[in-house]
Amino acid sequence: MALIVQKFGGTSVGTIDRIQHVARWALDSQARGDDIVLVVSAMSGETNRLVALASQINPIPFSREYDMLIASGEQIAVGLVSLAINTEAEKRGIIQRNIQNRAAVAAPLLGHQIGIRTDSVFSKARIQAIDTSTLHKELAAQRIPVIAGFQGVDAENNITTLGRGGSDTSAVAIAAALKADDCEIYTDVDGVYTTDPRLCSKARKIKRISYEEMMELSSLGAKVLQIRSVELAAKYRIPLHVRSSFNPVEGTRVVSQDLLGSMEQVLVSGVAADTAQVKLSLQNLPEQPGVAAKVFGALSRASIVVDIIVQDVPSNGLLTVSFTIGQNDALLARKILQELRATQFSEMRIVEEADLAKVSIVGVGMQNHPGVASKMFSLLAEAGINIKLITTSEIKVSCLIDGKQAKKAVEALHEGFQLHLTE
Amino acid sequence: MALIVQKFGGTSVGTIDRIQHVARWALDSQARGDDIVLVVSAMSGETNRLVALASQINPIPFSREYDMLIASGEQIAVGLVSLAINTEAEKRGIIQRNIQNRAAVAAPLLGHQIGIRTDSVFSKARIQAIDTSTLHKELAAQRIPVIAGFQGVDAENNITTLGRGGSDTSAVAIAAALKADDCEIYTDVDGVYTTDPRLCSKARKIKRISYEEMMELSSLGAKVLQIRSVELAAKYRIPLHVRSSFNPVEGTRVVSQDLLGSMEQVLVSGVAADTAQVKLSLQNLPEQPGVAAKVFGALSRASIVVDIIVQDVPSNGLLTVSFTIGQNDALLARKILQELRATQFSEMRIVEEADLAKVSIVGVGMQNHPGVASKMFSLLAEAGINIKLITTSEIKVSCLIDGKQAKKAVEALHEGFQLHLTE
Repeated sequence: MALIVQKFGGTSVGTIDRIQHVARWALDSQARGDDIVLVVSAMSGETNRLVALASQINPIPFSREYDMLIASGEQIAVGLVSLAINTEAEKRGIIQRNIQNRAAVAAPLLGHQIGIRTDSVFSKARIQAIDTSTLHKELAAQRIPVIAGFQGVDAENNITTLGRGGSDTSAVAIAAALKADDCEIYTDVDGVYTTDPRLCSKARKIKRISYEEMMELSSLGAKVLQIRSVELAAKYRIPLHVRSSFNPVEGTRVVSQDLLGSMEQVLVSGVAADTAQVKLSLQNLPEQPGVAAKVFGALSRASIVVDIIVQDVPSNGLLTVSFTIGQNDALLARKILQELRATQFSEMRIVEEADLAKVSIVGVGMQNHPGVASKMFSLLAEAGINIKLITTSEIKVSCLIDGKQAKKAVEALHEGFQLHLTE
Repeated sequence: MALIVQKFGGTSVGTIDRIQHVARWALDSQARGDDIVLVVSAMSGETNRLVALASQINPIPFSREYDMLIASGEQIAVGLVSLAINTEAEKRGIIQRNIQNRAAVAAPLLGHQIGIRTDSVFSKARIQAIDTSTLHKELAAQRIPVIAGFQGVDAENNITTLGRGGSDTSAVAIAAALKADDCEIYTDVDGVYTTDPRLCSKARKIKRISYEEMMELSSLGAKVLQIRSVELAAKYRIPLHVRSSFNPVEGTRVVSQDLLGSMEQVLVSGVAADTAQVKLSLQNLPEQPGVAAKVFGALSRASIVVDIIVQDVPSNGLLTVSFTIGQNDALLARKILQELRATQFSEMRIVEEADLAKVSIVGVGMQNHPGVASKMFSLLAEAGINIKLITTSEIKVSCLIDGKQAKKAVEALHEGFQLHLTE
């Protein structure tokens, strides 16, 4: 008997039909003798609907109020999925309701009800602790906890959310807290691909991938898993299984690198593209110690994730710093930089370039093979693509390019590194 | 300086425009030097949307899951109203947000966050206690608590709801707990009328009305206030002010009868009509002690409110019991009665008559004036309307009639008792 956490994303609970499917799936899983814990996202479209309502009031909403608002999406999904599980269980004769319409296989649980404690960084909160006592009690009673992903409460009992895709992190954190045997991530694709199939028709499903490669792919725009969830899974060695809720085939297993045989080690395992990138260049900054700290400190206090950072050689005592951020953070970043100019760097010029894409290659194999980066640059050059910024790590190389050329770049890299052939 | 609870119903927060209006209104009220506490309902249409989702899964939903689902409607409204208040306060220069987008005049609060404890009768829960410590703390800091109406938590921390219109009860309970000076109920009409203006064009706004009359009017289908909220207001002597959020004119004050001058005492103060009524007749019941207790006990355990009850004189040892319930409870009631027939009263025949209306006249004046009831029957007879059941109390008389004749009946009674002339 195993303990399995099953996480269902927005499209997997996007309609009443899909919700009923999830209910049958969970009950079937339980009937095989396993303990099942569900973590659900908001129905697809729901979070966007709520965000749109907030934007009508304020384009940069106050964060605490925003989190309370959007957390309601997961609450709706928890209510409906639990209702569907009980309804199906009644149909199967597992439960009989009493006169007050109560009976339960499902145990609907919000963040505050199982003590998912987070810090107070609203909209990007990090989980600090989970109280598993209620979960253990419900499991012992043969019930299926249905938990709202994406949400928690801070020390003052304010509702917090974990950022887009945060339900993945909720699922892995709960799996870790419960020492689950497996964490299944159900989504609308049947696994992790060598690249985005919409950008490259030759994309191929990867059977097994290491946590490290998956982290790089996640950080590079593969929307399948939130990167924090992979970090957490790696830390607690929770095996992930990314699979489709529409198609019961085996998906992609994300595991420790030591569980991957060396025969499977390929040079490059995936190509990623992230298209909603903005490049900001700050020109005419004084060449003084602490300038970068002031700029990036201000951005970081607002929880803006800065990606590629490049600093030019100073000329005439003046400095240019360039960096990229996601389109979502652009409005807030601009506001912060304008304040900085008003209060500290009066000469600073802010140059913004939007609609950029970051294309990246990822693979643990490249650690021991020199020349992978230069091959990437050649492939892009041959395709007539100009590179605006470059950044590298031990197992990835990323290039910032014009967003309109993202598809062409991905195809050239996928073909050039022969990803359609491997495995 | 007064402490005022302001409750805004679904239409009052039904659009972003309306929500922004509420925000300005609350801040204006605070600027006059009063302590303001808001209680909000779900945006109009939202609860129906959620109920429709649940119905697609199960026409008689499991109650705990249903409550968790529909409570999210108020959470959305709390988030948006709080966001609008902070946005307006920022515009007025009252607050300045920090780098993490935090600052607050509004304090968004859900039922569980201020310990609104209820019993576990899901969908019709009753409030048992409210912990006012957080509210006092927020008020002392010059903030405006924005509280989700309609919801609470039971002893096991399950989310409960108070029944349709329950936000009125939330508001009055909070006003009572805080010993508020006034409880303003903002709705889409500008007060309580002598009858439903849609049914009778001569309907007139009532300036002041006693708790007792208001309770009768509420129980009789005047949708302005949930009856439990009026009971609660009477018990704790909380003055209510029913008024429009669209129109700043004085509405209707609901106060103790001893505050109404005797000059104001009129025979009949209002005519009410409730159109979604179903009459159930149980025929061929055995004439034995305890039969009624069994029937109504079963219905009451399912929290079905039974209204008019009539028992015929038995003939041949067999009994007929008739009663009315709301259309909403009809499906569940039928199920319970069928179970009762299967297990106890095999000879029982269930006759159902739907689409009925209950028309009623209400007035503290009628206590000391005989002949009011008979005048009502005459007026209905003159209008050609057949009476199916009659029930009376000290300050009201109700008649069950064909639903299609409701409008005609209301007009005849309004005219006959000269309600267009009084006050």
